[in-house]
Amino acid sequence: MSRVGVVGVGLVKVKEHWGESLESLFTQAALKALEDAGVEVDKLYVGNMCGPVMQNQLNLGAHLAQALGIHGLPAIRVEAGSASGGLAVHEAYQAVKSGKSKAALVVGVEKMSDVLPEEVSSALSMEEDYEYTAYTGVTKSGVAAMVHRMYLDSYATAEDVCMMAVKSHEHAEGCSHAQYPFRMSLERAMASPMEADPIHMMECSGVGDGAAAVVLAPLEGGGVELAGTAVSTDYSSLAQRKDPLFLESAASAARKAYEEAGVGPSDVGLAEVHDDFTITGLLSIEALGLAGKGEAWRMVVDGEVDLGGRLPVNTFGGLKARGNPLGATGVYQVAELYLQLSGSAGDHQVDKADVGVALNMGGLGSTSVVNVLRRVEA
Amino acid sequence: MSRVGVVGVGLVKVKEHWGESLESLFTQAALKALEDAGVEVDKLYVGNMCGPVMQNQLNLGAHLAQALGIHGLPAIRVEAGSASGGLAVHEAYQAVKSGKSKAALVVGVEKMSDVLPEEVSSALSMEEDYEYTAYTGVTKSGVAAMVHRMYLDSYATAEDVCMMAVKSHEHAEGCSHAQYPFRMSLERAMASPMEADPIHMMECSGVGDGAAAVVLAPLEGGGVELAGTAVSTDYSSLAQRKDPLFLESAASAARKAYEEAGVGPSDVGLAEVHDDFTITGLLSIEALGLAGKGEAWRMVVDGEVDLGGRLPVNTFGGLKARGNPLGATGVYQVAELYLQLSGSAGDHQVDKADVGVALNMGGLGSTSVVNVLRRVEA
Repeated sequence: MSRVGVVGVGLVKVKEHWGESLESLFTQAALKALEDAGVEVDKLYVGNMCGPVMQNQLNLGAHLAQALGIHGLPAIRVEAGSASGGLAVHEAYQAVKSGKSKAALVVGVEKMSDVLPEEVSSALSMEEDYEYTAYTGVTKSGVAAMVHRMYLDSYATAEDVCMMAVKSHEHAEGCSHAQYPFRMSLERAMASPMEADPIHMMECSGVGDGAAAVVLAPLEGGGVELAGTAVSTDYSSLAQRKDPLFLESAASAARKAYEEAGVGPSDVGLAEVHDDFTITGLLSIEALGLAGKGEAWRMVVDGEVDLGGRLPVNTFGGLKARGNPLGATGVYQVAELYLQLSGSAGDHQVDKADVGVALNMGGLGSTSVVNVLRRVEA
Repeated sequence: MSRVGVVGVGLVKVKEHWGESLESLFTQAALKALEDAGVEVDKLYVGNMCGPVMQNQLNLGAHLAQALGIHGLPAIRVEAGSASGGLAVHEAYQAVKSGKSKAALVVGVEKMSDVLPEEVSSALSMEEDYEYTAYTGVTKSGVAAMVHRMYLDSYATAEDVCMMAVKSHEHAEGCSHAQYPFRMSLERAMASPMEADPIHMMECSGVGDGAAAVVLAPLEGGGVELAGTAVSTDYSSLAQRKDPLFLESAASAARKAYEEAGVGPSDVGLAEVHDDFTITGLLSIEALGLAGKGEAWRMVVDGEVDLGGRLPVNTFGGLKARGNPLGATGVYQVAELYLQLSGSAGDHQVDKADVGVALNMGGLGSTSVVNVLRRVEA
């Protein structure tokens, strides 16, 4: 068996779903993907970060298989903080590739709006080194702020960096599964309060609930192939990194995933990057080899990342505007690449892209997962 | 690539490690396994249940890869409650089988003694359906007690069931990695206080910290093969199960794992079963097809499960006496089968076994993972 393909997707709109449970969000996305794929699945992968700390629920694989109503379905929960979704796709790929699964359902799901904002902040600190980072009082935003400050010192203005968020909102406009499907002006973003100086509130992804699902199966004939998938890790402490302005784990995972897919950065036609902050969006583009070091902001400002641009990025709004339901995010990314490469992206459709890449990170790149998708002719 | 083998193991003694951290327990087991295997690994699987609720630490893959000091190592945390360890072995198998990994390190690790006993009880409730079980005030021991009561009503006396614990202690005697490496009399166990009527305290596994590691790699020539590995799930609520006295997920996973290995229950020469309670130990033996329904207690009472018996079970003491550090337990089981099948079990060595089976469960069998190991001649 040579190729593993994405054969169906299901997306739930990211928002504060006060009337829905973790289980119901999961089930909605799963059923949509199963209907879309039209195949029977024999394995379930769940990407989820906060179930144990927000819903007091462990053993989510079995728990959610039961919610779905497929009795006895083998189920595996994978967790790597905000990279849980992308990692679940990676594991499901291996299940199909190894012949252990004929078709695997991957669902990323997160329910964050049940808890207080400070509990969200606390959970986000748990994907850094809790004992050495959180105990000093530095939040995840605080870690990102240090890197953002360094970028401003070396490469770009505050407005240049902020444009990453403006573009994401532009792409989210009218997207039915996006949390913020509207434009946001640079002026408005720059006038928003500081989340962690120099990061403005409107440069951060928000708190939202969501679920996204994809079905992976051997690819017969044409379709969209999961052509490369790789994981890498890095020190969570910035102080230990050779260069805090370079996401080494992301670059390493990208190299491996490109190699597996038999492509290089120049073959990539669109990208979904991990812009939980504007700065991480820019560093993601650079780590994927799509821009030189310190140069991603130019691609953004010059409009190269636009839907009609040379290399569209975050075509449904990215983490900033589509939304960032932590453990679900990486599955949204892969589903969105599939929509683009299969020509099903509607108003968001980009032209001529044959290869798409998604970067999903846990912590500030302590875990990175890169998934490369490719359109394959029959 | 046809066969995946276990090529090295590392075990830390289960006990209350007040002077050790999660990270140091992990590292000790990992380094022992790497030294034993003598190969370089390119992927890390972590089986852990309670990190986020006991250590406030998510993203444990990257976190522990960093503790180990292998920079950039791809790392994946897998969680299915107490089945996390066995499931991590399953996922690592797929990584090697699919060709994505040339050699994978699997470490199960749990640090429970940092928290209060009621927090352990709360965490255990999270692997059941928290909203429908824990909220009613039923603990995990309470769920097991209901099944234990039914077994007593149908099949055996309280003493018969309790002998499961007595045998496990007998096998743990002198075991260097066991938490309770000494014998326990039936009288003492039956005189211990009730944990959840009719389960005596001495019929339950205790609270302990531990870490176990195995290295999986393609098997060249002879050695110990991971010949079959399967996962299945079941309703967590006893009320929804067709027969609460039959662990359907365990039986289903066993069927698939046996089939993959090309063996049947009659080929099994030794077993490691999930005796977090005496009753689950007995039901495990039955679900694996090693005894008829309601008959496992006879095997135990008659000494068939003894180290020198027809079918040795829990040869280093099982969850009861070796110890049950939740997410680590399934890796201990696989490591112990390896020690037996490679003839490295010392005083605990059993004769003539070519095939060993391990059953690791999350909840009361809402998740079951069965791993089948086989001795292969060069």
